[in-house]
Amino acid sequence: MHIRAAGTRLRPHLDPTPLVRSIPLTQEIGRPAYLKLESFQPVGAFKVRPALNSILCRLGECRARGVIANSSGNFAQAVAYAAALNRVDALIVMMRSASRFKRDRTVEFGGRVALCEDSFEARFEMTERLRRDTGRLLLHPYDSIETIAGDGTLGAELAGQIEGDFDVFVPVSGGGLIAGTALAAKAARPGCRIYGAQAERNPATKLSLEAGQPVLGKPAKSLADALTVLKPGARTFPIIQRHVEDVLLVSERSLAAEVRWLATHQKLIAEPGGAASVAAARLAPPEYGRPIVCVISGGNVAPELLRRLLRESPAA
Amino acid sequence: MHIRAAGTRLRPHLDPTPLVRSIPLTQEIGRPAYLKLESFQPVGAFKVRPALNSILCRLGECRARGVIANSSGNFAQAVAYAAALNRVDALIVMMRSASRFKRDRTVEFGGRVALCEDSFEARFEMTERLRRDTGRLLLHPYDSIETIAGDGTLGAELAGQIEGDFDVFVPVSGGGLIAGTALAAKAARPGCRIYGAQAERNPATKLSLEAGQPVLGKPAKSLADALTVLKPGARTFPIIQRHVEDVLLVSERSLAAEVRWLATHQKLIAEPGGAASVAAARLAPPEYGRPIVCVISGGNVAPELLRRLLRESPAA
Repeated sequence: MHIRAAGTRLRPHLDPTPLVRSIPLTQEIGRPAYLKLESFQPVGAFKVRPALNSILCRLGECRARGVIANSSGNFAQAVAYAAALNRVDALIVMMRSASRFKRDRTVEFGGRVALCEDSFEARFEMTERLRRDTGRLLLHPYDSIETIAGDGTLGAELAGQIEGDFDVFVPVSGGGLIAGTALAAKAARPGCRIYGAQAERNPATKLSLEAGQPVLGKPAKSLADALTVLKPGARTFPIIQRHVEDVLLVSERSLAAEVRWLATHQKLIAEPGGAASVAAARLAPPEYGRPIVCVISGGNVAPELLRRLLRESPAA
Repeated sequence: MHIRAAGTRLRPHLDPTPLVRSIPLTQEIGRPAYLKLESFQPVGAFKVRPALNSILCRLGECRARGVIANSSGNFAQAVAYAAALNRVDALIVMMRSASRFKRDRTVEFGGRVALCEDSFEARFEMTERLRRDTGRLLLHPYDSIETIAGDGTLGAELAGQIEGDFDVFVPVSGGGLIAGTALAAKAARPGCRIYGAQAERNPATKLSLEAGQPVLGKPAKSLADALTVLKPGARTFPIIQRHVEDVLLVSERSLAAEVRWLATHQKLIAEPGGAASVAAARLAPPEYGRPIVCVISGGNVAPELLRRLLRESPAA
């Protein structure tokens, strides 16, 4: 219901992203394989869905008070973009260690960035302090109803683009995208199966599923800078528990290999976190004939990193 | 008529390629801008359309005799792919100086490659000799009816993806793609306008239009290794004369800049020849509200070249 309303809200502003059949991936994994190109969103990542929905849901208040958010980079760009589109003032808190590329693009899209020390605690504290001091409205990157509904528009869109049941692989950080996608996909097509992809180095949701409750992971550096949240959300986790079949962990090596693979065989630029779905799909058991969809959740990789990833010899 | 039949012939084998709205290009040139992603074809270039149509038109003969073709690389891959798909034996003549990347992919797709010296005469002679000696059927890269009809399916597809009149920018080498696209687009939508894009260094079709007849250009090295044909075809040229508004010449610097731009802002990998359409579109006079379509004709750029192009500082 929330997701359908979000779809109506976003339609005038966002084109559906292409779902393309990948012949090379189909050949390699032996199942019909599709890529859902969220890297084609205006900010190069799916995050524009939740950011725009969050702002449009409370537009008057956002305009009057301004908004504040925190992010490792893709939600930052999305909030900046969605805010500028709606004449809303946006302030985004990012860690000093966040991708410079993503920070610069956030500013290009019209956002103001406040930098904090390199920890989630510091980011949370600065965001809270600035929110109180300025009276801005906080936009949550993954755990609000508006965010999850905005994320869910991806699942609804997907169900309109492909027939029959399918398995969908979704990169996971705080869990908003996979929670929304799972709700929407299973509402439209109950036989669908939903799989998450996390970096081995940041397996918070996988560990939480095993523990039966949200557990706090340890901060670790990964190529997948978009998938670093240390604990699934209080709202997203129960949805994931109920609707997601499994979360698969992928190595740094495979993240790099998939960025290269997508560049060479699909002519697509994905960021490592965005390519995690492809790495995960290769780990899934073969199942004759059942289509898989890999959500390429973002493409915001700095040119220098991309150049390095293109150079490295393919993983064995 | 040929084009419609080609569309029916190709449909079971090729998905329509996405037409995506480019928000950054729209903002930069001030007209609604779309990209037609032929880089997403199974061989990474539009050439699979004419190759597949040429083979399917005479499948029995192709199977009995085998086929032969010559190419700078994209038609080579396409013939190899289309032949393997239809259990046809394919031999492709390429110059020693052709892109190693494209040559290797041709072999990967199942083609056999014969190398010749670095001139169009040598390539033509070797192709003719091998054709006579082996009895293979020659597939023309741009100047047969089957090729032009296959190319034309792009224009027909486009007319089904966008409403109203539009201007389309098409990279030009031998002229097959622009001739076919012009025929199909203007048949469906007579108000459409068709523009070609050639490298300044290889302006054969532009010079021929000025001369009123096909003239032979001088061989020159360009980043756009896919756009090197020295003279428009006997069949393609009259179609271009009649249906193409103009051919625009683009610099080496702008080809490099557009490859970088597409990577950064669209998360797309285009080869320099495939990005020529975007460079040309920026040269077109602004015209309020009339949409433009840039055909990204191919994405087969070697990783080393891509790395170099991503490194260079943006053109001023």
